Amino acid sequence: MVTAMGEASDVVARYWAACEARDWVGFGELIAEDVVYELPQTRERIRGLARYVEFNATFPGDWHLSVERILGDDRHAASWTRFEVDGTTQSGLCFFDLNEEARIAHITDFWPEPYDPPPGRDHLTELY
Amino acid sequence: MVTAMGEASDVVARYWAACEARDWVGFGELIAEDVVYELPQTRERIRGLARYVEFNATFPGDWHLSVERILGDDRHAASWTRFEVDGTTQSGLCFFDLNEEARIAHITDFWPEPYDPPPGRDHLTELY
Repeated sequence: MVTAMGEASDVVARYWAACEARDWVGFGELIAEDVVYELPQTRERIRGLARYVEFNATFPGDWHLSVERILGDDRHAASWTRFEVDGTTQSGLCFFDLNEEARIAHITDFWPEPYDPPPGRDHLTELY
Repeated sequence: MVTAMGEASDVVARYWAACEARDWVGFGELIAEDVVYELPQTRERIRGLARYVEFNATFPGDWHLSVERILGDDRHAASWTRFEVDGTTQSGLCFFDLNEEARIAHITDFWPEPYDPPPGRDHLTELY
């Protein structure tokens, strides 16, 4: 299969659209059977399409997401999404690797949390 | 100025190489005079090239970084770096916007921290 420049960005855009639409069939069609999903912060890993779709389809809360940025080349992409649930907003940051069939084969997912500004640099910073 | 497809990735690769090399002159040449740097987790913002270079040049610790991924198009890029300092390793995730002179004009920087796995999903996950 010939993959076009930037194809991974298109796949990831469809991935997030399907996720927000709860279109779990369309979502699953973008993902490899042997997908590996990793959360480095908790050291959790999910292997396989069925479990990964279940993880997303059963994720608690009336969540909604919107895309802030998607960047990619033919086989790799990154996304920054805003995830809103129960009146809170979080940023989600994902890195995707596609296989030769242009299906998502590996996802690394980060969820940065707020923390206090470290001391010693407020002569350079402002707060917003 | 005509910018080539993927130019932002090249600029960001040079940005991280200069940073690791403590080449603050070369680093500064990649960045716009009116750069805005934001840390959404602490809500800190730094405005302007001089302050931003000082922030990096005076960052405490004998830190070293390596690039895990860089993705981009002509004006936007994302990077995932590993940042090692004092025997610890952290992931740093940045999103970059370039101006018309292909200098970095806006940086959004995330530092995800470890957290405990939420309950209720260990039938889908393994720990690594």
